Amino acid sequence: MIRLYDLAGADPACRFSPYCWRTRLALAHKGLEHETIPWLFTEKEKIAFAGTKRVPVIIDGDHAVHDSREIALYLEATYPDRPPLFGDAGGIAPTRFLNSWADGVMIGAIARLIVSDLPPRLAEQDRAYFRRSREERYGTTLEALTANREKDVLAFRSVTLLPLRLTLLRQKFLGGEAPTYADYIVLGNFQWPRCISDFPLLEKSDPIWSWRERMLDLFGGLARNTPVAEAA
Amino acid sequence: MIRLYDLAGADPACRFSPYCWRTRLALAHKGLEHETIPWLFTEKEKIAFAGTKRVPVIIDGDHAVHDSREIALYLEATYPDRPPLFGDAGGIAPTRFLNSWADGVMIGAIARLIVSDLPPRLAEQDRAYFRRSREERYGTTLEALTANREKDVLAFRSVTLLPLRLTLLRQKFLGGEAPTYADYIVLGNFQWPRCISDFPLLEKSDPIWSWRERMLDLFGGLARNTPVAEAA
Repeated sequence: MIRLYDLAGADPACRFSPYCWRTRLALAHKGLEHETIPWLFTEKEKIAFAGTKRVPVIIDGDHAVHDSREIALYLEATYPDRPPLFGDAGGIAPTRFLNSWADGVMIGAIARLIVSDLPPRLAEQDRAYFRRSREERYGTTLEALTANREKDVLAFRSVTLLPLRLTLLRQKFLGGEAPTYADYIVLGNFQWPRCISDFPLLEKSDPIWSWRERMLDLFGGLARNTPVAEAA
Repeated sequence: MIRLYDLAGADPACRFSPYCWRTRLALAHKGLEHETIPWLFTEKEKIAFAGTKRVPVIIDGDHAVHDSREIALYLEATYPDRPPLFGDAGGIAPTRFLNSWADGVMIGAIARLIVSDLPPRLAEQDRAYFRRSREERYGTTLEALTANREKDVLAFRSVTLLPLRLTLLRQKFLGGEAPTYADYIVLGNFQWPRCISDFPLLEKSDPIWSWRERMLDLFGGLARNTPVAEAA
């Protein structure tokens, strides 16, 4: 059975890491049995064996793999008899661009809308670490980052998400007729705000909303039915 | 022999449409013999037979096809024995996202850096049409759009192009080990400013510059050796 170290909040059942969600959805897509191990930001030593300080980390028999994309490629190569995560081999390289956009553009834009909502929902031992490390990274307080979010969310919807919307106006899933790892990357990003913040990111009239509804239904509602954090 | 209606400038040898470049590169990739027919913005009636007002349009025997992505899909389906444009079938759907980004984000950002350079390089009969239609679209003059380009180009490089850079830091081409249609989409976008403006978009230290150099070398220097427009 594969084990996945999965970022957790104050409620250990609340799992909100966009990168861990990519892995959970990839494991579900492959139909691979797994268990998740709740992990906190400040528990670096628990995953040191894998040579990383960040989750997701999976352990599959003798193999430890970290980094969500590396895990997806590992699962694809190791379980070729299971449903393909990238459509087929031709999907791996072009999915890299979407991955780069999701990590380099989309996540940062979401952070500016919700990051100040995180601390009260984190385990107590993680709160100071999270605030210090993120305020260092962004060069300002979490509250200053999200101060204009009522206005910023309009640009997030119309500008940042435009390439996603243009794609989903023309095909049912990012992977085409059926979801692939491309879809799990972006749904993972949306699970982050969905699980840890009440701030509404999407409008119901947006084709991206409809796509997300389809995605939340997958695997018996895996992503829909996950516990959502209450502020402490 | 396939014929391609290809947007031209005051010098009929100067071809600068990003969308036509995608098609020219796709035809070269497939090794398909073709000739190009120079076409001006104001010659809508010459392509009306294809049910469109925009190039590229190709004629292949009895078939007329328009829209660069539709042409790529047509070539892939019609000439499956030639080198695949999308790696393999699994590449088609995820390339849609890059296509949406290239059309919805990258082209608009380039326009704000170079669009005022176009009129003096267009055929005389196209100049008023181009200015009027673009100023309507953007809601301001071409000169106002590019007024801050010395500053805007810094954000273009560091922010707009980030997902491209992150991808090319990790793989040689957008298509992986070898160029695919994903690469032709983005090179096409870069051919637009390269052929019609002197304004420098990229820095030599940028991995995107190195990738573009590799791309300009393809097909005997097809994209590198194309005539560049002088201002009239």
